[in-house]
Amino acid sequence: MSIRIGILGYGNLGKGVEKAVNMNPDQELAAVFTRRDPKTVRIASEGVEVRHTDDLEKMTDQIDVLVICGGSATDLPEMTPKYAALYNVVDSFDTHANIPAHFCHVNQAALSAGKVGIISCGWDPGMFSLSRLYAHSVLPDGHDYTFWGRGVSQGHSDAIRRIDGVKDARQYTVPVEDALQAVRDGLNPQLTVRQKHTRECWVVAEDGADTARIEKEIKEMPNYFSDYDTTVHFISEEELLRDHRGLPHGGSVIYSGQTGDQKHVIEFSLKLDSNPEFTGSVLAAAARAAWRMNLDGQSGAKTMFDIAPKYLSPCSDEWLRAHYL
Amino acid sequence: MSIRIGILGYGNLGKGVEKAVNMNPDQELAAVFTRRDPKTVRIASEGVEVRHTDDLEKMTDQIDVLVICGGSATDLPEMTPKYAALYNVVDSFDTHANIPAHFCHVNQAALSAGKVGIISCGWDPGMFSLSRLYAHSVLPDGHDYTFWGRGVSQGHSDAIRRIDGVKDARQYTVPVEDALQAVRDGLNPQLTVRQKHTRECWVVAEDGADTARIEKEIKEMPNYFSDYDTTVHFISEEELLRDHRGLPHGGSVIYSGQTGDQKHVIEFSLKLDSNPEFTGSVLAAAARAAWRMNLDGQSGAKTMFDIAPKYLSPCSDEWLRAHYL
Repeated sequence: MSIRIGILGYGNLGKGVEKAVNMNPDQELAAVFTRRDPKTVRIASEGVEVRHTDDLEKMTDQIDVLVICGGSATDLPEMTPKYAALYNVVDSFDTHANIPAHFCHVNQAALSAGKVGIISCGWDPGMFSLSRLYAHSVLPDGHDYTFWGRGVSQGHSDAIRRIDGVKDARQYTVPVEDALQAVRDGLNPQLTVRQKHTRECWVVAEDGADTARIEKEIKEMPNYFSDYDTTVHFISEEELLRDHRGLPHGGSVIYSGQTGDQKHVIEFSLKLDSNPEFTGSVLAAAARAAWRMNLDGQSGAKTMFDIAPKYLSPCSDEWLRAHYL
Repeated sequence: MSIRIGILGYGNLGKGVEKAVNMNPDQELAAVFTRRDPKTVRIASEGVEVRHTDDLEKMTDQIDVLVICGGSATDLPEMTPKYAALYNVVDSFDTHANIPAHFCHVNQAALSAGKVGIISCGWDPGMFSLSRLYAHSVLPDGHDYTFWGRGVSQGHSDAIRRIDGVKDARQYTVPVEDALQAVRDGLNPQLTVRQKHTRECWVVAEDGADTARIEKEIKEMPNYFSDYDTTVHFISEEELLRDHRGLPHGGSVIYSGQTGDQKHVIEFSLKLDSNPEFTGSVLAAAARAAWRMNLDGQSGAKTMFDIAPKYLSPCSDEWLRAHYL
């Protein structure tokens, strides 16, 4: 019997989860839930209903795991605990400072309901977090470095779009090659924010807008750009749509450690054509784990750190040992 | 209270485990066990006893986890099940075809004793296995490739040393750069054994030995060399000791997958100055997991696939979520 997946929220991430679920032989998409009028939402999967979130109160016998595809700022802090009281749930909560509180709220709800709630899945937090944990556990003496990119940062692109006179924009986070190489060589450099990444902006200005002022506003924007070497390119809307359509991303976690005088470098890297489709794939695998851990009698909030890797796979333990070990 | 570790076998791997245990703040080395006369074995750690393996029958109250550092051919199939009946155990069993039988024997012994027996730890099998499992679980449509090296293969070096007229030898396994690049580029090439790795041999011949015959015997040796492009260099004993003293190794697991028309490449790579010291470090982390899983009520044979990552770390769950997630 397939694991029946519900998706709450149908933006880029929800679409990524939908695609992943449809590729997983052991999963089926049961329904997509939206806060909008369901009639206005068309989904890619045929024969699958779009329903209003209000219906979630009464569908606990039709959904095994609910994958919650909302924003970390306001959606997930409310939604994940709420629905963990009804379903096994998975989310991609990524506001780092608030993870302890979010974990606590989801844990209370999930424990009371006897459900599993897996939070903060994706690649960072998620796969990158695992790399940091494994590396530190094996080699206690060492440092981890995380580089992101080259890839589109949706948060930074949005920040540019909010500037007066900007019609559209795409921002790429780019790791500094020399810094990457020094870390890969095990040199354990001390790196400032500026030394690790540059920011590359492709901006469509509105007709007659003051591009010099826009460029200055971008480069001086605190938190987002002022601590980085930032380049700004003004292009036409056609060029943006033609050359910057996708949402590629990726990066590397590099751990440089030692046993006495012997050095060891561990690197985990991702090169992703589509950030939301890959993140959606991680969420779909985590949904499988949530379901299987719950079947094994587990409940409460979990992160990737709590998931025995076998639970993420559709294959049997015997098969995994024979083929991947 | 520290986890009290026993090490069985004091070769390169046992020494690597010893070094790792001494670096881990939550572990202490309780004793080293040997099948040799204990008086003939000097260990690096001060104030730690070397004992004969016979003493293992009567030390169950002094050792929390026994790390078994023997060979996969004959030592581990006998030792790991035997001592899993007395202790939580960890080994690095790596004869792939025999893993199912080994798992079964260790499982029976460990279940009966209420102990945990973690088998096949290290980097391959071990960390590389995890990379394969995670990648396949997240992206069901894709292929994994494993490249080893550049690094010293002890099995191949031993095979050369058994040839008549060879005094000493070191064999490096070297990945083919073009093949690596094609895989990293997501081209999903079909690669033969010969196309993935070359073999580089550094040989000290005995005085007056027929080097042409030795070179021919190496290059034509079935399983070990005949399927590879192999180069043979004859050098002096001094050069071997000077330039080929270490036991570096490493490699990459590269997974090339897709979600529809979007490609994603996942790579996990290791660059290790010392193969036995890194492998020993993985075994020490696995020993921690064995102890903690057993405290949590688990028993039986386990592999890295069964270990929730948090069990490998000395840090609390809260700390891990705050710092590595």
